[in-house]
Amino acid sequence: MKVTVIGLGLIGGSIAIDLRKQKFASEITGVDTNEENAKEALKLGLVDKIEELEPAVSNSDLVIIAIPVDKIKVVLPKVLDLIPDFATVTDMGSAKREITSTVTDHPRRKNYIPAHPMSGTENSGAHAAIEGLFGEKICIICDKDKSGPQHLALAEKMIHLIGMDIAYMTSDEQDHSTAFVSHLPHAAAYALANAVLAKEDRNIIFDLASGGFRSTVRLAKSSSSMWHPIFQQNRKYVVEALGVYIKHLTDFKDNLENKKDDTVLDLITNANKIRTVLEGDNPSLIRNKETNFKLYTK
Amino acid sequence: MKVTVIGLGLIGGSIAIDLRKQKFASEITGVDTNEENAKEALKLGLVDKIEELEPAVSNSDLVIIAIPVDKIKVVLPKVLDLIPDFATVTDMGSAKREITSTVTDHPRRKNYIPAHPMSGTENSGAHAAIEGLFGEKICIICDKDKSGPQHLALAEKMIHLIGMDIAYMTSDEQDHSTAFVSHLPHAAAYALANAVLAKEDRNIIFDLASGGFRSTVRLAKSSSSMWHPIFQQNRKYVVEALGVYIKHLTDFKDNLENKKDDTVLDLITNANKIRTVLEGDNPSLIRNKETNFKLYTK
Repeated sequence: MKVTVIGLGLIGGSIAIDLRKQKFASEITGVDTNEENAKEALKLGLVDKIEELEPAVSNSDLVIIAIPVDKIKVVLPKVLDLIPDFATVTDMGSAKREITSTVTDHPRRKNYIPAHPMSGTENSGAHAAIEGLFGEKICIICDKDKSGPQHLALAEKMIHLIGMDIAYMTSDEQDHSTAFVSHLPHAAAYALANAVLAKEDRNIIFDLASGGFRSTVRLAKSSSSMWHPIFQQNRKYVVEALGVYIKHLTDFKDNLENKKDDTVLDLITNANKIRTVLEGDNPSLIRNKETNFKLYTK
Repeated sequence: MKVTVIGLGLIGGSIAIDLRKQKFASEITGVDTNEENAKEALKLGLVDKIEELEPAVSNSDLVIIAIPVDKIKVVLPKVLDLIPDFATVTDMGSAKREITSTVTDHPRRKNYIPAHPMSGTENSGAHAAIEGLFGEKICIICDKDKSGPQHLALAEKMIHLIGMDIAYMTSDEQDHSTAFVSHLPHAAAYALANAVLAKEDRNIIFDLASGGFRSTVRLAKSSSSMWHPIFQQNRKYVVEALGVYIKHLTDFKDNLENKKDDTVLDLITNANKIRTVLEGDNPSLIRNKETNFKLYTK
């Protein structure tokens, strides 16, 4: 199978590594507007060759778009214009409503599967690509009824091969849930970094930063070229999530300030429940072990 | 040297492991009001024996108090009453003003070194103790001029042996800096967990939680018996830090909501600087490599 990966960064590069290892792709072509990054991807062996967009996608069975969401909006319709009729296209963007809405009426809409792998690191570029980035994580597929069954099946096969389970949602559901579970933690980390940088001496931050601070603020290292457009495209739900978060923080602060220590204790105890949720000790969770597929109906 | 560790949890247990390995202690006695935890510590070989407070500390060269800060306030004066004249006492509490103020006028104030190791995990209890927890982290020593030089030297030796560098501050400086670099990230994680738990289905959180969410919210697992009293004792500065953080978050939210996308980009770019600060690529940092000691003057 001929695979083209557009965008040879953390996500695209890591997918290429896994697809090659799984022998899913007979040939991987890379497309990247950043020439230096393209060269590095070739040197690192992430792809077999580098091509321009048009020759690459017009000769592919599967096109994977792994670029910032503002660029996906521009590139996706072009890719659908250029592909052969049988080819499948998927994108890895973190916000989905705006991207899917740009191709609603495209004659090849059925060739396209909107996807979002819930995995990453705070690093970017071809050199950030790593093997096994996606193992045991979830990939969201949106609006699956709008994709043709053969295209959906191919995308699902590829996603399973890189080690992911799949959750199916509408674009709207994905943008809402992702606002809370992914976009909010990023915005929170950016604001935490700014708060601490504004108040504390850099030497003190460096020296006193324990593992706790480092892990809480880690996402604040994430690249603005990827995250700025996500916040713009998912503005409505990120603003909602930030509002909820600020409300909870203000609640914590006000109770602490007013010496309502019993309430502060309740807030801490409630937050501790996240351990049970994250560690999966969750009797209400029904997993279909046979397929590893989950279907959410909100 | 006979060492007594009061509180055989994550911190006390991990210190005991390292002190034994470094052959600093000829005998380690454990004191723990939780009998079950004391038994487990003995079974795990963290300590040589378990004793009551009085016999343990009246026969020690060094007493290390590693219990929640509300309990330190009660236990520290008792320990100073009970120790032999030559013995040294240190505590590992995360807030220092209130603890040090309880022994300001104690006749054995010079035997005491207020310390705060900037290291930990979100786990607690004897089974959470691990080797090498403190390696290459910073331990704060407060108000060092109030400690006798021989006691200070012994505490410094012990802290270096477990792998830590030392930063010297006043109790007030430590409580202020720690409010931003440690207590705020904990409060932020508790509020983030509560916000997400309030809005999202537990199954969705479990399935969609990527590494990013997990690391940002990790501290929300931290035990309330340790953290609730820290927030109470460092109320003033934690409220200040939360206020600064809420201001930065509100700024981010308002700019995003009002489509001031250039400003949002500036906020992200500024937050990215935390990478340089945390990774130590910081030309202004002067480290005294010979001693590994740093003296802060704010």
